[in-house]
Amino acid sequence: MAMQEERNGRHGGRTAEKKPVRRNAAKTGNTRKPPVKRQAAKQSQPAKKPAKKPAERRRQPVRIIPLGGLGEVGKNITLYECGNDAFLVDCGMMFPDESMLGVDSVLPDYTYLEQIKDRLRGIFLTHGHEDHIGGLPYFLQKVNIPLYGTRLTLGLVEGKLKEHGLLGKVKMNVVKPRQTVRVGCMAVEFIRVNHSIPDAVAMAIHTPAGVIIQTGDFKIDYTPIEGEMIDLARFAELGSRGVLCLLSDSTNAERPGATMSERKVGASFETLFNTEAASSRRIIVATFASNIHRIQQIIDAARRHDRKVAVSGRSMINVVTRAMELGYLRVPDKLLIDIEEIGRYPKEKVVLITTGSQGEPMSALSRIASGDHRQVRVSDEDYIIISATPIPGNEKHVTRVVNDLLKLGAEVIYERMYEIHVSGHACQDELRTMLALTKPKFFLPVHGEYKHLKKHADLAIGLGIPRENVRIAEIGQVLELDGVEMKLAGTVPAGQVLVDGLSVGDVGSIVLRDRKRLAEDGLIVVTAVIDRETRMLVSGPNIVSRGFVYVRESEELMAEAERIAVGALKHCRDHGIRDWGVMRVHLRDTLSQFIYRKTKRSPMILPVIMEV
Amino acid sequence: MAMQEERNGRHGGRTAEKKPVRRNAAKTGNTRKPPVKRQAAKQSQPAKKPAKKPAERRRQPVRIIPLGGLGEVGKNITLYECGNDAFLVDCGMMFPDESMLGVDSVLPDYTYLEQIKDRLRGIFLTHGHEDHIGGLPYFLQKVNIPLYGTRLTLGLVEGKLKEHGLLGKVKMNVVKPRQTVRVGCMAVEFIRVNHSIPDAVAMAIHTPAGVIIQTGDFKIDYTPIEGEMIDLARFAELGSRGVLCLLSDSTNAERPGATMSERKVGASFETLFNTEAASSRRIIVATFASNIHRIQQIIDAARRHDRKVAVSGRSMINVVTRAMELGYLRVPDKLLIDIEEIGRYPKEKVVLITTGSQGEPMSALSRIASGDHRQVRVSDEDYIIISATPIPGNEKHVTRVVNDLLKLGAEVIYERMYEIHVSGHACQDELRTMLALTKPKFFLPVHGEYKHLKKHADLAIGLGIPRENVRIAEIGQVLELDGVEMKLAGTVPAGQVLVDGLSVGDVGSIVLRDRKRLAEDGLIVVTAVIDRETRMLVSGPNIVSRGFVYVRESEELMAEAERIAVGALKHCRDHGIRDWGVMRVHLRDTLSQFIYRKTKRSPMILPVIMEV
Repeated sequence: MAMQEERNGRHGGRTAEKKPVRRNAAKTGNTRKPPVKRQAAKQSQPAKKPAKKPAERRRQPVRIIPLGGLGEVGKNITLYECGNDAFLVDCGMMFPDESMLGVDSVLPDYTYLEQIKDRLRGIFLTHGHEDHIGGLPYFLQKVNIPLYGTRLTLGLVEGKLKEHGLLGKVKMNVVKPRQTVRVGCMAVEFIRVNHSIPDAVAMAIHTPAGVIIQTGDFKIDYTPIEGEMIDLARFAELGSRGVLCLLSDSTNAERPGATMSERKVGASFETLFNTEAASSRRIIVATFASNIHRIQQIIDAARRHDRKVAVSGRSMINVVTRAMELGYLRVPDKLLIDIEEIGRYPKEKVVLITTGSQGEPMSALSRIASGDHRQVRVSDEDYIIISATPIPGNEKHVTRVVNDLLKLGAEVIYERMYEIHVSGHACQDELRTMLALTKPKFFLPVHGEYKHLKKHADLAIGLGIPRENVRIAEIGQVLELDGVEMKLAGTVPAGQVLVDGLSVGDVGSIVLRDRKRLAEDGLIVVTAVIDRETRMLVSGPNIVSRGFVYVRESEELMAEAERIAVGALKHCRDHGIRDWGVMRVHLRDTLSQFIYRKTKRSPMILPVIMEV
Repeated sequence: MAMQEERNGRHGGRTAEKKPVRRNAAKTGNTRKPPVKRQAAKQSQPAKKPAKKPAERRRQPVRIIPLGGLGEVGKNITLYECGNDAFLVDCGMMFPDESMLGVDSVLPDYTYLEQIKDRLRGIFLTHGHEDHIGGLPYFLQKVNIPLYGTRLTLGLVEGKLKEHGLLGKVKMNVVKPRQTVRVGCMAVEFIRVNHSIPDAVAMAIHTPAGVIIQTGDFKIDYTPIEGEMIDLARFAELGSRGVLCLLSDSTNAERPGATMSERKVGASFETLFNTEAASSRRIIVATFASNIHRIQQIIDAARRHDRKVAVSGRSMINVVTRAMELGYLRVPDKLLIDIEEIGRYPKEKVVLITTGSQGEPMSALSRIASGDHRQVRVSDEDYIIISATPIPGNEKHVTRVVNDLLKLGAEVIYERMYEIHVSGHACQDELRTMLALTKPKFFLPVHGEYKHLKKHADLAIGLGIPRENVRIAEIGQVLELDGVEMKLAGTVPAGQVLVDGLSVGDVGSIVLRDRKRLAEDGLIVVTAVIDRETRMLVSGPNIVSRGFVYVRESEELMAEAERIAVGALKHCRDHGIRDWGVMRVHLRDTLSQFIYRKTKRSPMILPVIMEV
């Protein structure tokens, strides 16, 4: 089969920055035999194993450096280096977990990338989800390099850059599946995959040492909603010619079988829309804003049932608008109405699509549930479908929303009551298919916590990849591949950088430890003014507490604490302690012991001693 | 069938406080027809509906007042009142949710119970789980009344009272299933049920208005491990004679089908213990300390595989010890070894049973996973089974423990990989069985969030209970039943009382709001000393922050904040503002605006102005 590489130049002005290349197959592998022949050879291999494969020749090494996404869910970012050339695949962020108090988002450590920025040629984006593109505004402010992605992906990036005032300052190059972009001694080929957002791709990275495939997030959907099915043929073709290493999505590695087709959800919508309960009510569907296929199916169902569609939630409006502009969402004329207009239509003639399927506190659905939504009041005339599964950690939020909606009298379809959600990630059988098609020499499971990576590694070993060729890597590790072996060639700085408000990186373990302490038991500030000469107490001690107890109900405790503080200061004077630091520590410890004895709590105690 | 009521007096000295009663069947119902006949009448009912049942006579009303467990999971407690008599069924606590920062546990509001304490005759306990007995130490300190429960339940209560110095001060009466205790004009009958702890019972409350059945937590296990199966016959018998109202466990009302038998887990253990992976390794099983049947099955499997058993985790040791003393756990001689001794046996000859199946941070399994356990180091010679499903909210904790154990090289069996856990609560088919057997006139779903109660209510309506006879009640509502109707007869105080350290109730919404604020963005304390006469700044302003930013990396920001504070104080002096309150507000607002503009964060700002 001939390779179908299209010149990027065909795709308009924005691709000007790319350096299209007609990659020679000889560069990527080491066998040019037709697939069939090689496959036949492979099948008879067990009999003539001793014959060493011609591949076993050391070549110019390529270095794979995952800087995020391993041992964690989120902030996917992988660096590829070969000779003087380097580029990134994805540039994601991560949502903070509940221990990261007050943190808005989590970024990878960019230290190493800043060190090598002169060699960095670009960022190749697999798809438009936050955990793959969310770090871009932060990273591009430090290192401004060109972006390469499919049309929808870059369309979503555009919105993001706009928010951060970066639009027009960053070069963006649209690449289509099966196109290849040369990056110095390497070349990056886009391969279509299925995922819960359209226009997702895997990358085949052609390097002097061999072809490396990074799947990005993927699943195999034989009946996708729009666009094409995952390009299994291309994966197979690369596999036949020899793949050096596979980096594959481990998100669902614990789940047996295969992920259902997105189309299944459409069938469920049809069933639900047809129920008696739904057909006499307004229908509200909450889902992920980025799941454009899902939104398309809701729109299609609405059209079939002669209902108007309104949209609520900032990100939902943004994505729907952008997807319509770019042609990823087909909406019949006059179907879409403004949320302000929904009152003009009978309830049973309206479908509302909203954000908030994860119960996010400020989302449209949460506001609807708590009665805080400006245009939507829920009653027993509403039929609500939460078309998503709670992401671990969000269960309680979703439950709260469901309870509130039920209390308002609505019918609510949630969780596993019907097949109203399918995952965007491959389950075990699909992961096996990817491994079997690409037949990689080395395997790196990526995208997942340790347990996911481990499971995926076990799957690969079960398919016959030698245990020593499978590696559960860690972020910051430098994996060097020369065509013969994959070895650990050092580490680079990697970790988490926390974003809180405007600032990046000034919240770390000490600040978080203090926040945790404050969250647990609150604080007590004790202030005293002391005469510089006489060491006598001039004013105070004053005690102020926050988050500790109801002060009005604890007047006695607070009065006693003040007496204890007076005693502690007197002790210092009597013992000739003149060092402010020592005085503060003594005051703090004395108060702390007293408070713990009385309450079994350990509020943070902040002594402020001022001298006049 | 004759009623089998045993006199409580038979069961030793501890029952002395009880007033055994040979309850007359006539008191409980209104029909004395044999069950079969009544059933026949029932079947032909649809044909002759107009004939009003003889039951329709108003009687002395009974009041059901749920004070917890409705619209929430936990703190189950229900008050029954009739004439001058009142008693409680259960007295539980609830675990705090993640919004209750620093809170140790949550109690019901006891206000009303304290008001009627002279009428309160006792507390009847369905089983020994925290959400049914955990409030006892707190409540008994306020109102000391006798307890009634099965032997194991009271055995577990004993340990709890001991910890709180209440042992010997509270009267405890052991009651067996099918025994009845008179409480003034009412009588409480114990009926065996299956649950994830032995010796669990439902209560049939015989009142002048009719029989009320409160199931407690239950499931139907046709092949229970020890003890007997749920006493379906007695539920059926009461149903045949006429049940006025059923209060039934809604925990699993969302789940179709029936809960698997606990024995299924034993079969899974057997399978897993026999695997090659397990048979050459030490086996560690984590489960709930109170699931004595589960522990029995682990012990049985260990015995069959000729392994010694050690136990780790405070609550696990407590429960195992207590259960062995009381004869609820059968452990062969010399099978149990001390955890200190495990090193003396080959790894493949040891089973370790631990707490921590929910990933609780200080539990034995968490300490093992993080390498902090004094006696247990995990390696690739360990085979670990987490025999539990994460309770919503604990998923991330469990995942962290699994990841850590896998990283240490252990095999880990968790979540739904095998059938290593079954629920203790009835699923939809079992709930239908309970409804069908008891055929209640009125139905109150209990134990669950609104969504569970709603689902359970729908099940009941589906079985033919008139919609108007099914009520989703709220805590604090007084439901009055006179045999003919169930009506809302007012409300009593109900809610959440938070326990933090030693004190109960001094942490409320203001304290929690402050803790949340402190947790999000930390705090800034600004202190200034001002001359009382001249209003001149004598010392300061000093700025101290905690949980806000790394001060060392933000010196410029802090210095600027001090200048802003100086300016704010000068503004007050220049404008003749002499009121401390106004000065503080001005200082706080000025600083707050500055900080938000610079960082987009809103730390709590605490101004302390002292005068000399």
